[in-house]
Amino acid sequence: MSSNVPIAHGDLTAPTPQNTPLTQAPIAAGLSRPTVPDISEDNEPAEDESDEIPPMTGAQAVMMGLVQGRLADLVGKSSGYIESLSNDVKKSVEALKGVQVKQNELQNQYKRECLELEKKYLELQKPLYERRNAIISGAGQATEEEIEAGTQASLKDDPDYTPLPKDAESTPAAIPEFWLTALRNHIGLSEIITERDAGALKSLTDIRLSYLPSDSPKPGFKITFVFSPNDFFENEILDKTYLYQEEVGYSGDFVYDRAIGTDIKWKEEKDLTKEFEIKKQRNKNTNRTRLVRKARPTESFFNFFSPPSPPAEDIDVEIDEEELEELEEKLEMDYQIGEDLKEKIIPRAIDYFTGKALEYEGMDEDDDDFDELDEDDEDGQFDDEDSDSEVELPRRRGPPKGRGGSSAAAVNPEECKQQ
Amino acid sequence: MSSNVPIAHGDLTAPTPQNTPLTQAPIAAGLSRPTVPDISEDNEPAEDESDEIPPMTGAQAVMMGLVQGRLADLVGKSSGYIESLSNDVKKSVEALKGVQVKQNELQNQYKRECLELEKKYLELQKPLYERRNAIISGAGQATEEEIEAGTQASLKDDPDYTPLPKDAESTPAAIPEFWLTALRNHIGLSEIITERDAGALKSLTDIRLSYLPSDSPKPGFKITFVFSPNDFFENEILDKTYLYQEEVGYSGDFVYDRAIGTDIKWKEEKDLTKEFEIKKQRNKNTNRTRLVRKARPTESFFNFFSPPSPPAEDIDVEIDEEELEELEEKLEMDYQIGEDLKEKIIPRAIDYFTGKALEYEGMDEDDDDFDELDEDDEDGQFDDEDSDSEVELPRRRGPPKGRGGSSAAAVNPEECKQQ
Repeated sequence: MSSNVPIAHGDLTAPTPQNTPLTQAPIAAGLSRPTVPDISEDNEPAEDESDEIPPMTGAQAVMMGLVQGRLADLVGKSSGYIESLSNDVKKSVEALKGVQVKQNELQNQYKRECLELEKKYLELQKPLYERRNAIISGAGQATEEEIEAGTQASLKDDPDYTPLPKDAESTPAAIPEFWLTALRNHIGLSEIITERDAGALKSLTDIRLSYLPSDSPKPGFKITFVFSPNDFFENEILDKTYLYQEEVGYSGDFVYDRAIGTDIKWKEEKDLTKEFEIKKQRNKNTNRTRLVRKARPTESFFNFFSPPSPPAEDIDVEIDEEELEELEEKLEMDYQIGEDLKEKIIPRAIDYFTGKALEYEGMDEDDDDFDELDEDDEDGQFDDEDSDSEVELPRRRGPPKGRGGSSAAAVNPEECKQQ
Repeated sequence: MSSNVPIAHGDLTAPTPQNTPLTQAPIAAGLSRPTVPDISEDNEPAEDESDEIPPMTGAQAVMMGLVQGRLADLVGKSSGYIESLSNDVKKSVEALKGVQVKQNELQNQYKRECLELEKKYLELQKPLYERRNAIISGAGQATEEEIEAGTQASLKDDPDYTPLPKDAESTPAAIPEFWLTALRNHIGLSEIITERDAGALKSLTDIRLSYLPSDSPKPGFKITFVFSPNDFFENEILDKTYLYQEEVGYSGDFVYDRAIGTDIKWKEEKDLTKEFEIKKQRNKNTNRTRLVRKARPTESFFNFFSPPSPPAEDIDVEIDEEELEELEEKLEMDYQIGEDLKEKIIPRAIDYFTGKALEYEGMDEDDDDFDELDEDDEDGQFDDEDSDSEVELPRRRGPPKGRGGSSAAAVNPEECKQQ
């Protein structure tokens, strides 16, 4: 029943009518998750939302680079196979395309039902989320049973774990900076949370997930950040809503439409998304100078609530290719953080708080495997970028896609598997 | 509402109690899909199936290499933050771990229900799959409506598409080599289907998906290959069954347990998974030589039905680290092909037949992005391997993981999104 013959690394068979792809395509592309609509210029505008081509992630792009040489001899040849078929057979092929349209409709319906199932389980999780929040805030007393279950879980992870001493009695005790700590143990978020942000995020008391109502025009979800009163802004709630397009994409997954964030009501001079600088101004008439305080945008976690807008599809504005790429990267990063909050941080916040979640993020690789790419890394591609030392506004391109820029690095779950 | 400030590429903040990860972890790792259990030696044996660490895909590994340098200064430091908390707060933390156990149980239940939803929609798709099969085999006549719907779909993809001429009448017409053509338009499969295999795969008349019954000990699915009588083997059906472990893994996704394939009853001298060679043998006593026909394993698509067995966890057999890695690669490739058949080829066979599916596999990247890695490629890592020229049995390592070996290249959907 078992075999020692590797089936994975066979010879690349010679091009034949059957195996000659109509276009170059690596097997690297197999990701299925809510996708980012493709906005790069050289693609034809999609006729229909459901025809959006899911863009490659950075990881896929790297893979593609690696296989491109191998497939070079197969690229761009039309097989001519279908053209060679008789008219009756061509009709059968055409009919199969017609049947596929119905299959795709069912797939769309399936994804909608997946979303309903997600909602159902969110409701089932809610009492547990509320209990979690009560313990974090100190409003609720940890029970013996909960502590015992937690100890058992810790012992399962680490047999040498030392259980807490059993006191006669314990008092409710809030966990300070729980959510700030959890967020900072997510590598992507740790990079965008500045020290200034941390001051405000200490007041973050809960992060909640909800879904848009089933009858809303576009499906989607909302991440709600709950704050206690703080010195930085008036809002008690900051929301980020992610909308999917109505139709699933070609791969059978939802495609992100856009994200919407709460307008933050910053208190006087407390806007963390701005840096202020003093500039001299000279009055042309009087020739007298005065000092003026100027605000300029700066990096901050709170820019998360002012997400980039996808370019309008119907308006034919001339946009620079590089700007489009930059926008696409920013959108991808924005969607990725939303996904991670929804899929990982909210469901397993305690594991982010303790750092356990990080241990499960694929650490079983040999360091040896990376020697060459590590050297690659030393070209300074990933040096820290210090915005303060730049004269320009901090608007610059990240590492090119496909080279491992952080915006493209994390790839993530899809809604529900297509069938 | 929109902002020009890139939030993605901020400075890496200095290590603090909050942001210092307990272990190195790249943001690259965010994949969620049925995972391959980790079998490499230097990991502690999992105490429980649900604690399996999902292994990194090749893509993640590449990303990890790229970010490693950047995170180097954060690696391996314990934050000491949790240790510094008071005993009462530690109890709250412990209680949260206890609450998380219940959340994980719900997640497990959720995934089971996702699987039931998949089954429900497979049933809904069945009449369409049967209709598809009737058209492919020529048993059914393509209707005007189907042809028209197909033409509309083609025109949506390509406004310049030329519809078929409308004859007065058409006759049912089977599509020759439909499934062979579809399989060979999947890049991963095209690499393992040899010319010899193609002879047998011409008799492949259908590929079907089914699920294991809900009351079976392990959940899973089955891919059924239906053949017409052929010169190669007696079986009319070749099955490949994939089993998931009972408990979902840490990421909230099913973890593959193992795969089982049909024993192929090869006709005399027709075994495509073997190559025969003539060897001279000398009789030690008589000193006379004779010619002996020896079989040795060779690469073939049909090895897909003799999948590698994961090593038994409870038996402490000494296994070479390199052998384990090789086994892990082969398992990953085997699971990947099963996933792709289930998720992509069966649901959209017509698109693989025409090649349309390939156009959607992430082709929107600039070639320029790959210059450096293309050069990398030229070190011969991805040269075709020619088994015939080797004296050894064709048992060798593929490209190392994390460098884009085909076994690790394709990353794929998960069952159902966790919530």
